[in-house]
Amino acid sequence: MSNRAKRCSWCGELASVKLPYARLSLCSNHFLEYIERRVKNTIKRYKLIRPGDRVVLSLSGGKDSLALLHILNSLGDDFELCALGVDLGIKKDEYSARSIEVSERYCRELGVEFLKVDLEKDYGFTIDDVFSSRRIRRPVCSSCGVVKRYVTNRAAVELGADSLATGHNLDDESTVLLSNYLNADIDLLVRSGPVLPSRGERMVSRIKPLYETSEWETSMYVYYRGIQPVEQKCPYALDTPISRMKEIVNLLEERRTGSKIALVRGFAKKIKPILAEHHSALGEIGQCEECGYPTSTSVCSFCRLRKRVLNSK
Amino acid sequence: MSNRAKRCSWCGELASVKLPYARLSLCSNHFLEYIERRVKNTIKRYKLIRPGDRVVLSLSGGKDSLALLHILNSLGDDFELCALGVDLGIKKDEYSARSIEVSERYCRELGVEFLKVDLEKDYGFTIDDVFSSRRIRRPVCSSCGVVKRYVTNRAAVELGADSLATGHNLDDESTVLLSNYLNADIDLLVRSGPVLPSRGERMVSRIKPLYETSEWETSMYVYYRGIQPVEQKCPYALDTPISRMKEIVNLLEERRTGSKIALVRGFAKKIKPILAEHHSALGEIGQCEECGYPTSTSVCSFCRLRKRVLNSK
Repeated sequence: MSNRAKRCSWCGELASVKLPYARLSLCSNHFLEYIERRVKNTIKRYKLIRPGDRVVLSLSGGKDSLALLHILNSLGDDFELCALGVDLGIKKDEYSARSIEVSERYCRELGVEFLKVDLEKDYGFTIDDVFSSRRIRRPVCSSCGVVKRYVTNRAAVELGADSLATGHNLDDESTVLLSNYLNADIDLLVRSGPVLPSRGERMVSRIKPLYETSEWETSMYVYYRGIQPVEQKCPYALDTPISRMKEIVNLLEERRTGSKIALVRGFAKKIKPILAEHHSALGEIGQCEECGYPTSTSVCSFCRLRKRVLNSK
Repeated sequence: MSNRAKRCSWCGELASVKLPYARLSLCSNHFLEYIERRVKNTIKRYKLIRPGDRVVLSLSGGKDSLALLHILNSLGDDFELCALGVDLGIKKDEYSARSIEVSERYCRELGVEFLKVDLEKDYGFTIDDVFSSRRIRRPVCSSCGVVKRYVTNRAAVELGADSLATGHNLDDESTVLLSNYLNADIDLLVRSGPVLPSRGERMVSRIKPLYETSEWETSMYVYYRGIQPVEQKCPYALDTPISRMKEIVNLLEERRTGSKIALVRGFAKKIKPILAEHHSALGEIGQCEECGYPTSTSVCSFCRLRKRVLNSK
């Protein structure tokens, strides 16, 4: 008898997914509804979006950001949603072209406005240029992070957005958190969490509505929604220290169900506020001498990176 | 050629231990010296002991506290050292009797003053009574923790000590730290770390000179010193959530050498000071109505526990 097919805890139909941490089995339709409610609760719990907000979603064409596009779109008319794709100019495997194509297609299907930043056209260089430049010593993934953070913020500011949403999920966040604890990096700790508020003009707040939704859940979400993310992995993606740390966090979750959520929620609710209060007294933010966007140094890291790449082209 | 025996990095003799995190191989004598220096550095780094201090060491007869007895004794005459054993009255396997016997013997050998608290004689009950009492619902290890913290502090106060040293090692501390991060327990976080300062009269500061020395290192230390710790494990010791967490921390160390040290040192140096500053504004400490020792409630948890046990005897 214990072998019989599981039934959906909500409607009694055959269940498609089992969620041990929530003691639920759900059919595919109720699973989709469950995840949408979860994200709605995350938005409420951390006050990520206020009524009437203009939210720009950064779309990569991967499963997380596409799931988030559909979820945010399903949450109704309480806020205004538009999407932003960045053509990073990664030619191999047609990675960037496919990213933009997939992102644009789903926005069109859902009737969500899609805007594109073209790194080559708008800023004169590509991530391929960064990779081949001999003058850039940091790993390409790290430079790409600088680029994406800068161009998405700038586009969101120009669009008059209240916030910029990204697809970072529970696995990303719990892993980075453990790593930041390990390095006791107060600066990175304070900048992590479900929301990084604007610290002045020309800086929109960054929000992570998938903060409490796991990678497995977004994978299941796109699968049951019939969404097909970009198949290619970024050709520059490597086995980084962070991916090794992900293993540790997964093991922790295996041994103690609910650990990932406990880790990130406890941080966001209790530890971060204390660190942030202490930190705000220290951190002054200025304007980049070249572009006018916020930075803590005289010239921002994006402008420095761009200059180096352009000089070595 | 790569198979040849390793040589001591300090003297060229055959090496007995390999310390990959320090890129050292050492002969047994230099290993003992290395560990003694390490503990000396820990004491200096965290300002655990000042010249002229009267330090009471809590001795259980296990490898950690016996190693610490020998190490502290080797550090010279800069401070005054005496040792304290608690007879918990655990009859099974003659656990308590053996603990006291071993502790007393090594103190005699080293010429360190040894004092004993007898739970039955001095307070009228034993840990066996706690275990068999139907009126105590918390796990016996948790009650035993309350008892040991109370009686060691009280004895240290009566001895006019400046601090009470315990044998908690790097593995204990990194594991508890990860667990406290996971639960975001600010109160426990603030009370952890290499030193818990006195918060008023009748409370000595608690120090952990093995904060940066691993379990493996104390095991090797007692082995090469020819010290024989109590063989018995406490008969009440169980497979607790903490021992499962230890596995995770060990895996982390395996994947990323130096993780345990990084975790505890980063916490002690950077994160704890911020949390403690915030916390000190909140926590008021009073006096127990029954015994006069510090507590945050009207009657301290030791007096409440004792009353329940005595009433059910």
